[in-house]
Amino acid sequence: MQIAKEYQTPIFAYDFDKIEEYYHQFKSAFSGRKTLICYALKANSNLSVVKKLASLESGADCVSLGEIKRAILAGIPPYKIIYSGVGKQEEEIKEAIKLGILFINIESKAELFKVESIAKNLNTKARISIRVNPDIDPQTHPYISTGLKENKFGIEIQEAKSLYLHAHKSEFLEPIGIHFHIGSQLTKLQPIYESAQKIAKLVHSLLALKIDIKFFDIGGGLGITYSDETTINPYDYAQSILECLRGLDLTIICEPGRFIIGNAGVFLVKVLYEKISQNKRFVIVDGAMNDLIRPSLYNAYHQIIPLTQPQGEKSPADIVGPICESGDYLGKNIELPPLKEGDVLAILSSGAYGFSMSSNYNTRPRCAEVAISQGKIKLIRKRETFEDLIALEKDLMGDF
Amino acid sequence: MQIAKEYQTPIFAYDFDKIEEYYHQFKSAFSGRKTLICYALKANSNLSVVKKLASLESGADCVSLGEIKRAILAGIPPYKIIYSGVGKQEEEIKEAIKLGILFINIESKAELFKVESIAKNLNTKARISIRVNPDIDPQTHPYISTGLKENKFGIEIQEAKSLYLHAHKSEFLEPIGIHFHIGSQLTKLQPIYESAQKIAKLVHSLLALKIDIKFFDIGGGLGITYSDETTINPYDYAQSILECLRGLDLTIICEPGRFIIGNAGVFLVKVLYEKISQNKRFVIVDGAMNDLIRPSLYNAYHQIIPLTQPQGEKSPADIVGPICESGDYLGKNIELPPLKEGDVLAILSSGAYGFSMSSNYNTRPRCAEVAISQGKIKLIRKRETFEDLIALEKDLMGDF
Repeated sequence: MQIAKEYQTPIFAYDFDKIEEYYHQFKSAFSGRKTLICYALKANSNLSVVKKLASLESGADCVSLGEIKRAILAGIPPYKIIYSGVGKQEEEIKEAIKLGILFINIESKAELFKVESIAKNLNTKARISIRVNPDIDPQTHPYISTGLKENKFGIEIQEAKSLYLHAHKSEFLEPIGIHFHIGSQLTKLQPIYESAQKIAKLVHSLLALKIDIKFFDIGGGLGITYSDETTINPYDYAQSILECLRGLDLTIICEPGRFIIGNAGVFLVKVLYEKISQNKRFVIVDGAMNDLIRPSLYNAYHQIIPLTQPQGEKSPADIVGPICESGDYLGKNIELPPLKEGDVLAILSSGAYGFSMSSNYNTRPRCAEVAISQGKIKLIRKRETFEDLIALEKDLMGDF
Repeated sequence: MQIAKEYQTPIFAYDFDKIEEYYHQFKSAFSGRKTLICYALKANSNLSVVKKLASLESGADCVSLGEIKRAILAGIPPYKIIYSGVGKQEEEIKEAIKLGILFINIESKAELFKVESIAKNLNTKARISIRVNPDIDPQTHPYISTGLKENKFGIEIQEAKSLYLHAHKSEFLEPIGIHFHIGSQLTKLQPIYESAQKIAKLVHSLLALKIDIKFFDIGGGLGITYSDETTINPYDYAQSILECLRGLDLTIICEPGRFIIGNAGVFLVKVLYEKISQNKRFVIVDGAMNDLIRPSLYNAYHQIIPLTQPQGEKSPADIVGPICESGDYLGKNIELPPLKEGDVLAILSSGAYGFSMSSNYNTRPRCAEVAISQGKIKLIRKRETFEDLIALEKDLMGDF
């Protein structure tokens, strides 16, 4: 409530103490084993969030040069940064090599040759890892499932092997890691375990060929509880990975994003109007799909709770935003007490893939973001203004 | 091709001559009848696009104060601006009244009282129109269908009537218009015709009550051809509306957005990699779902054509972007010849709901936009830089 009053709504608020707690849960699950946790910036790349993780000694999983720059600016040393993604551009690869990041995760044969030729031009050796596609169904939403052959990600095991051999012989490539990542918001351990087994087997055969794999990058994707999902316990997760790695002396890299920031964040909105149509109750709030697109894009569920204590009997309502399409909703059939203008609602579990996917649709300025740390609230991103929105086009407005 | 070379990819390019042509198609369909075309900025609110429409004497349909400001900045006079949307905020309504726009489209009873109380505080009379929900199925995508009772939009006919009576008696409200809008990308005339008939009937009964309705706002939503859709001819559309208005002396307001800009725009992307997995061909390009979210969000189809003339037999391919989710695609199973790195593809029909919905997901800077007018190319929005992306948070990066 204090946040809504002081900083206005809609707004994203992140609990930095929880970020720390979730980070440690993950870290301690793997304790006693060489591990590097690389926070996946794609979930939430606010510089203060990344700086907090840097202070906890986290590394970074980045998917663009922009994310690499954010990580470095926030204090994560290049040797703890890995660079993933299917569409790396020449300039991005060049910069990543020059910055001396830990390794580049290779997603295709064409990319391997691209990295090799860039390294050659720079007269250096590029450290790489190959993302292997284990062809295992992660049992999650199709949009965030990435470990099947029909997905655009990774390289099949047989081809990966021949690419490792090529890299091993190359003067300009140094294959030091192996990577898999089968999807996001995973709630079943079995597919991860089976993937890790397949990939560990491949590592054995690579080591037999004297290809010196040092890093076993198990990706991210551990699910969180949005509603009543049973999630994977980090300890069980670690044990299952460690079982696959028996006899292998490898540093484990994990790339949690949602796990660390998802339930550490809420999206706060204010009630503008209640509208009862013949058949339906709508609560119109000042936050919209441009701010949090997950319900609309993934049909995702978020718990929604009032921060005031309104009286009266609960009834189901659709929580909708001001945007001019029916796809603009934050929740459907949510049981809520009667609400009045100005009441504040918290959309829970909004720390991951909330602000990072937000847009200016309907010329709506993007939200502010605040951190809550040891009881104190601090602004970590200003709300956009109309002037910000037109800054790159105002002076170019011409007569046609 | 020249655009891709000179301004880089990914980029949005709009043909301003086509904007003019589509505008005139619409305008001339209603010729001989008092008509105000209010371009729907939500489709594409680039200031130069809006300025072009202002020069053609278009008005503006706006759904936020930001859009109203854009319209005025681009030269559309306030008396040609209408303000729609279910979630108007107090400050927005106040400004809209002060700016003297044509009218506010009221979406709920609560909003009517809100506008009345604001007008009272300003000691003025607010011109309004009521958005009536005709409860007719527009037969389009559920996300952009807005004319059913279960949608959040508009007010049922009976309730609308009593609100008109209230407004008529109010010292601070002047009901001058009536509005309906049943959805977007409509390809069937019948639901529009039926809606117009229902609303025209309501107008008759309002006039009988001496409520002086002057504007008949028929909304927008006329579909365009993305693939092989048969669309509604603007002339038939106009005739069908005019038939409903027989005996009524009203100015017609239409709110085309997609119709004017949709097929006037293309999204140009560059091929980064081709990747053939056992079962599938992927063309990885430098544009992504953060730039054009329609395929991912609405499962929308866009024609995709190579701008170079590559040789060889066509085969089906998925056109995907660099973003780390399987939902990141621009086209699926598109027949394309073999492509090589650097080839440019045009994603057609991308003028509407392309840039306006784009985000910085994966820390990807948003695209540049260019205008093509009488053979000349001009930049109308600069590409974002990394510095632009972090401008509002850099100085707030703190220790926690």
